[in-house]
Amino acid sequence: MGAPAQAAADAAFDRVAAELGYDFGGEIKIGGNYVPFVANGDEVYVSGQIPRVGDQVVVTGRAGAEVPLARAQLAAKVCAMRALALLRQAVGGDLGRVKKVLRITVFIRCTEAFTQQSEVADGASEVLYAVLGAAGVHTRTSVGVLQLPKGATVELDLVAAVE
Amino acid sequence: MGAPAQAAADAAFDRVAAELGYDFGGEIKIGGNYVPFVANGDEVYVSGQIPRVGDQVVVTGRAGAEVPLARAQLAAKVCAMRALALLRQAVGGDLGRVKKVLRITVFIRCTEAFTQQSEVADGASEVLYAVLGAAGVHTRTSVGVLQLPKGATVELDLVAAVE
Amino acid sequence: MGAPAQAAADAAFDRVAAELGYDFGGEIKIGGNYVPFVANGDEVYVSGQIPRVGDQVVVTGRAGAEVPLARAQLAAKVCAMRALALLRQAVGGDLGRVKKVLRITVFIRCTEAFTQQSEVADGASEVLYAVLGAAGVHTRTSVGVLQLPKGATVELDLVAAVE
Repeated sequence: MGAPAQAAADAAFDRVAAELGYDFGGEIKIGGNYVPFVANGDEVYVSGQIPRVGDQVVVTGRAGAEVPLARAQLAAKVCAMRALALLRQAVGGDLGRVKKVLRITVFIRCTEAFTQQSEVADGASEVLYAVLGAAGVHTRTSVGVLQLPKGATVELDLVAAVE
Repeated sequence: MGAPAQAAADAAFDRVAAELGYDFGGEIKIGGNYVPFVANGDEVYVSGQIPRVGDQVVVTGRAGAEVPLARAQLAAKVCAMRALALLRQAVGGDLGRVKKVLRITVFIRCTEAFTQQSEVADGASEVLYAVLGAAGVHTRTSVGVLQLPKGATVELDLVAAVE
Repeated sequence: MGAPAQAAADAAFDRVAAELGYDFGGEIKIGGNYVPFVANGDEVYVSGQIPRVGDQVVVTGRAGAEVPLARAQLAAKVCAMRALALLRQAVGGDLGRVKKVLRITVFIRCTEAFTQQSEVADGASEVLYAVLGAAGVHTRTSVGVLQLPKGATVELDLVAAVE
């Protein structure tokens, strides 16, 4: 199985965005001397994404305390959608050109007692599969950390192979 | 020096497994919409591994508290063996086809006072060298984190170049 | 824009080193069965760097507590300079051969309340841009962690594309 056809992947992106109730269409702002993505050969690296929509980080706090599992999974989904939105920019607006997501690393801000990092990361994996199909099936590392930028609950980065 | 010959690397894998007293021969189960490894060009990415053998995570808890250094190093060795077992699957069962381990990232669950992350990661580095020889000499990043999936003491991921 | 000419990048490295007041010219020691960098194809992976100069880790402690923001940023700058010194070794002593820094991951040891991980990492991004120009503009992931090797405040690793 290859990646879904262009129309399929882009339509799936829009469908998942609608399900989440967020608009990922605007420009993703980034500060400083770094960029949202870099391409080299057939690889695209995407910077670490927190669950920001527009100017707001929509999920902050610690998984296992003020953030229940379902909401932490939502955070992971939003991070994945942001990464996909950037990946789409990197391939000229056509997600069908993503051959394979190679790696995602998912950092979860949590309490010391919280051990469901994998379950949180499943939110991101579901989104990647829902949008890209087989091309979205990836390797993954999930880690529980003390704190993340802006107090976000999740941060996710990604490397993908593209056509 | 290139990688050891196939027979040498595979025999070394079996020898290290016997020394650790664990069987890494069975299928490594993984849940959700992600996979244990992905190949792209000559690179293989391996998902984050915790020290699981069969259905059991054999080392859990915090380095620097209930887990002494030697046991945390054992956890790192088991993670490295799991990553090697997956890498072997990725190259068709022949570890001699691994050209170079490019990067390992080793996350160590620890107390706030524990600063021997590098010493823990040495366990993983030793295993990679014992099995792969010069091809197992890698770059490394070692980090102390608050928590890991299933309460594991160590999580390790890996990127390697293969023939 | 391509990378700055060789002389420009190497001179910029020396200038930033002088500004920081540290000498990055000596051999960077590393222990165990791993190495400071590995090249594969046009990619160079650099091991995680802490703010060590010679035999001393120059910034230790927690950002947000005993380490104020400016000093944590200094730690990030020193880490970036070490990574550049290693990258220079990897390309035969000529930083002008760095085509693009693909990814930096910046781990910041901090308090639970500290959320300026991105601001700390800006220190590293500034150094990469000051030395490499457009070739130094990268993707980035910034994470707040419980502890780092030797009690360092920052650890940074890097992947770059080279000629």
